[in-house]
Amino acid sequence: MLFEKMPVLPEDLAAMDEKQTAELCADLRKRLIETVAENGGHLASNLGAVELTVALYSVYDPHRDRVIWDVGHQSYVHKILTGRDAGMDHLRHPEGTAGFPKLAESDADAFNTGHSSTSVSAAIGYARGFELSGEKRHVIAVIGDGALTGGMAYEALNDLAQSRTKVIVVLNDNGMSIDKNVGGLAKYLGKIRKKHSYLRAKRNLRRFLQRIPGIGRPVAKLLTKIKNRVKHWVVEGKFFENLGLYYLGPIDGHDVYAMKMIFERANEIDGPVLVHVQTQKGHGYEPAEKNPEIYHGVPGFDPATGEVKKSTRCSLSKSFSRTLCDLAEKDEKITAVTAAMSIGTGLQEFAEKYPGRLFDVGIAEPHAITMAAGLALAGRKPVAVIYSTFLQRAYDQILHDVALQKLPMVIGLDRAGLCGYDGETHHGIYDFAYIGHIPFTTVAAPSSASQLDLMLRMAVKVYDEDSEIPEDRRLFVIRYPARERFTHEEDPDFIKSGLEYGKGAICFDSRKPGSVSGVVIFSIGEVLEQAFEAAQILKDSGIPAVVFDAKFFEPLDAEAIVSLARYANVIVTCEDAISDGGFSEKVRLLLAERNISGNTACFALPNTLIPNDSVENQLASCGISAENIAGVCKKMLAKD
Amino acid sequence: MLFEKMPVLPEDLAAMDEKQTAELCADLRKRLIETVAENGGHLASNLGAVELTVALYSVYDPHRDRVIWDVGHQSYVHKILTGRDAGMDHLRHPEGTAGFPKLAESDADAFNTGHSSTSVSAAIGYARGFELSGEKRHVIAVIGDGALTGGMAYEALNDLAQSRTKVIVVLNDNGMSIDKNVGGLAKYLGKIRKKHSYLRAKRNLRRFLQRIPGIGRPVAKLLTKIKNRVKHWVVEGKFFENLGLYYLGPIDGHDVYAMKMIFERANEIDGPVLVHVQTQKGHGYEPAEKNPEIYHGVPGFDPATGEVKKSTRCSLSKSFSRTLCDLAEKDEKITAVTAAMSIGTGLQEFAEKYPGRLFDVGIAEPHAITMAAGLALAGRKPVAVIYSTFLQRAYDQILHDVALQKLPMVIGLDRAGLCGYDGETHHGIYDFAYIGHIPFTTVAAPSSASQLDLMLRMAVKVYDEDSEIPEDRRLFVIRYPARERFTHEEDPDFIKSGLEYGKGAICFDSRKPGSVSGVVIFSIGEVLEQAFEAAQILKDSGIPAVVFDAKFFEPLDAEAIVSLARYANVIVTCEDAISDGGFSEKVRLLLAERNISGNTACFALPNTLIPNDSVENQLASCGISAENIAGVCKKMLAKD
Repeated sequence: MLFEKMPVLPEDLAAMDEKQTAELCADLRKRLIETVAENGGHLASNLGAVELTVALYSVYDPHRDRVIWDVGHQSYVHKILTGRDAGMDHLRHPEGTAGFPKLAESDADAFNTGHSSTSVSAAIGYARGFELSGEKRHVIAVIGDGALTGGMAYEALNDLAQSRTKVIVVLNDNGMSIDKNVGGLAKYLGKIRKKHSYLRAKRNLRRFLQRIPGIGRPVAKLLTKIKNRVKHWVVEGKFFENLGLYYLGPIDGHDVYAMKMIFERANEIDGPVLVHVQTQKGHGYEPAEKNPEIYHGVPGFDPATGEVKKSTRCSLSKSFSRTLCDLAEKDEKITAVTAAMSIGTGLQEFAEKYPGRLFDVGIAEPHAITMAAGLALAGRKPVAVIYSTFLQRAYDQILHDVALQKLPMVIGLDRAGLCGYDGETHHGIYDFAYIGHIPFTTVAAPSSASQLDLMLRMAVKVYDEDSEIPEDRRLFVIRYPARERFTHEEDPDFIKSGLEYGKGAICFDSRKPGSVSGVVIFSIGEVLEQAFEAAQILKDSGIPAVVFDAKFFEPLDAEAIVSLARYANVIVTCEDAISDGGFSEKVRLLLAERNISGNTACFALPNTLIPNDSVENQLASCGISAENIAGVCKKMLAKD
Repeated sequence: MLFEKMPVLPEDLAAMDEKQTAELCADLRKRLIETVAENGGHLASNLGAVELTVALYSVYDPHRDRVIWDVGHQSYVHKILTGRDAGMDHLRHPEGTAGFPKLAESDADAFNTGHSSTSVSAAIGYARGFELSGEKRHVIAVIGDGALTGGMAYEALNDLAQSRTKVIVVLNDNGMSIDKNVGGLAKYLGKIRKKHSYLRAKRNLRRFLQRIPGIGRPVAKLLTKIKNRVKHWVVEGKFFENLGLYYLGPIDGHDVYAMKMIFERANEIDGPVLVHVQTQKGHGYEPAEKNPEIYHGVPGFDPATGEVKKSTRCSLSKSFSRTLCDLAEKDEKITAVTAAMSIGTGLQEFAEKYPGRLFDVGIAEPHAITMAAGLALAGRKPVAVIYSTFLQRAYDQILHDVALQKLPMVIGLDRAGLCGYDGETHHGIYDFAYIGHIPFTTVAAPSSASQLDLMLRMAVKVYDEDSEIPEDRRLFVIRYPARERFTHEEDPDFIKSGLEYGKGAICFDSRKPGSVSGVVIFSIGEVLEQAFEAAQILKDSGIPAVVFDAKFFEPLDAEAIVSLARYANVIVTCEDAISDGGFSEKVRLLLAERNISGNTACFALPNTLIPNDSVENQLASCGISAENIAGVCKKMLAKD
């Protein structure tokens, strides 16, 4: 292995000849496939960034210069080359390397990324800081063409162009974000791409020439050649030049030598430079080249066949999409909106059946929400489907453009709760807090696929004047996890219930007839699983317990909660969101208002960093496991 | 008056000859100056948009077509022409016309605006909705060049270009947002502007020619001329064309005839069009032409001299800036960041003294925060100063790019609390809720200028490793109102106190020595004024009262609050933020946790729409007045 020596230093990389570089890249690729196959993670984007990373670290010192990887899901090669190869064996697991850059993990990680389009802003901050303190350190932002659809990247480019701050922006253009890219700029990049497909041919020619003795060796001559080539490319990129950026490219992102040359040229230029690098997502691994969407993020796969591991549990995204399609069939006004996540949110079926009624706006959540507000005003029935963590970007738009106008709106918050192996940046645990205080909202959280179905069917009624949903609660948000965890609905003990607006339901009750004391667990969302099992444990220990599935966060089913809590010996709340602004706080405030005091135990997520692990482990580490809940209740009863 | 007939219909406007149009515009201008002089409001932007609005409504029907005014502070002419001239007498007052578009006010107001850069998104939504339902209605977004620095406008343009949705984007380019514009795009627009300054000369020539008999009259000829002119201009705007938008312009935004022509041309084009209109902020009123920043938003002025009314109370923005300058003098690492609000936030002095250390990034709050994160990582001490309502745009950046990286950061939230006459969209009343739940924060709220000074001096210590601020609370946010309201510090009865981290202080105590009962008012921020005066009233009625100025929202001074509350007869909380996620909830949760129950009364803002009025009236309408607080306390005591 060429990367036996760790970390690999820029001088090592710079000293490699073309053959050694190619071997290194092949090794890196092998390593990527092997580790992602085993641990799951982002594959296609990393395979596409092998040569780019090698070229960058032949020119820049990752431990001293600042290279910021936008989104960060293409940073595995960076991690391997900066001393974390061993950790790749347990990639994304607690004992291994994190799947995204982490300041705390290495001095080579310049900025924690996860959400898209932040790198140029961070790079400008770094560059200005170094400039003010007189430090000579290169600052590079590596941003994909997908991330460039995010407005804040443009805000940063605009600032960069005006201020002339020296930052090198590497546009890693693979024609994809997670889904296929959308937007006018993507089209524009596509045009350049087409025009320059001859570059690949040219590179092959150069390789051929180099193999001929007497021609391949004279490096000086070759350099001149490449420089001329670079010069030639400068004519492109009018878009960026109009913005005021010096543009270099496009260049083949799998040609390490050419890229080294262009980075050195970029260093010489006074002021900000945009280097346009064209890469292929999944490069060098056929299954990923063919289906980069599937290999964007994978739960693990068979490296030989490329067969992807499948989860056995039901995906709530699919369930959401199925209901939405059914609704759309009956009502042509139903319109779906998403932000670069039609696949992740399971909207493919909708896209196929009603292509004209799905608007995927790219990585642009703020625009998605305000555009949906326009749709609603034009008489459509928009349903926006966005991951909980990414909707954070549109907080102001939900408040300012939907709520303050008292517009009806349905928002599906996919991936609510803990995200598992992606770590801190991807948790959907702030949504109760950031949406709960917005006026005129209904916030619902299903504990199962069948509940999600009922909730979505109810939600779209916000667009009907005579619906059961109060007029001042017609911004209807449903937050749901990726997968169904609660699967007890078939259990004969489970008390089936439909869905009534603003009402929760008892779904477990082991109290003796006529008795109202015991443990009462108020649960919301997917952690009903833990609540339900805790109640079973308590029942088995002879302790009567009730589980109340709240279903609605806004409005809370206050009367049911109060009447259950009033005579309980122990009151428990359970949720997979942060405690601040969450369900537990809401219940506690309600009980205080009604002067109900007593033994209470809150099982919510602490407002701190919850690192990557399985969702079950993450929940358990925060005390949210059936055993722990039951144990705490027993202790509290013993004290009484 | 030409606008006696109300509303003015497109056919009326279209039928006007050039002389009548000029008279109408002059009348409108007079009316604008008169109403803003009397009521305060946005002047310069409206003066600049007179001809543009007249031209638009000669071509489009504002009651049927959808014209969306970005930000909305240039919509006064629109309001006058659509039937709200009478309401302009009380512009921005509860009985008059609102200062921003409001769906509830007129069917001509297509979208509530207030925050920048939303219009194109909303327009796309409308256009798609109409397209899907087969309605033929024009959709126009009027957006300033300043608003174009906001990323979401770019997200929308990008989507528009790709989807070919028919929207006409009118770029109202006056070279200014509120402050002078920044960014590469502004530079680019400036270049076009310079190149086309000859247009104005040309227009004068045309006027001159028209006055000559036999030349001025042949309209057909003139039309051809103008059309040719339009054709000529189409060559510009490569930036937008590269993005995929059909570009028309630049055109003189004070030439109604030319604009009518270009809008008709825009209608004919298949697909989205960007019409570039060049206007002058403050056009036609010399003081505003000369100082558009001052006349952007004015509290009222003398129309004859242009002299602006001054407020007698201290501006906390200035006070913040003064302290920041003092800190910057002693520590060269102090760096200021703002988003198009260097003037509004009082940073001029800083800008003059330390120009290299102030970064104004334009209307781009998300970028501002993440850029500041980069500055902090590069060893600078950034202080970001942004209005509370506008920082809503950067919720995700504060959480994802600052908090989750555990970076130190100081954020000054100017204009916290109710905003007065600007109305719902500008209130800074959600900040406790949207920042309070973010991990690793300190949130402070001064009740006076001297406290703000102490808080800012404390806050910048987050950058010192050995400071008193806990390591897990180094995202330090200070929220403060525009003006100082609490001015009792000179009062001999007022118990002076310094500032201790996380500690509040008693600032009024009329309890008898040794006694601990009575009314205790926990107050945070500027409403200390009302709390203080309520306590005076209670004292005068023989009821002992204590006022506790909490100063810190995060962390709460729990021990002091608990010990004061424990024996109080009535517990009152007081704040100028929404109750959800606010100070009152925090105190109630604390008291519940410590099993302190009793008579409590919360004076916070209801989570609903609080329309434009004076801040005092707005507070009073929500029950936050000294008389009401004292009255409620008396009633509660009487019941006991």
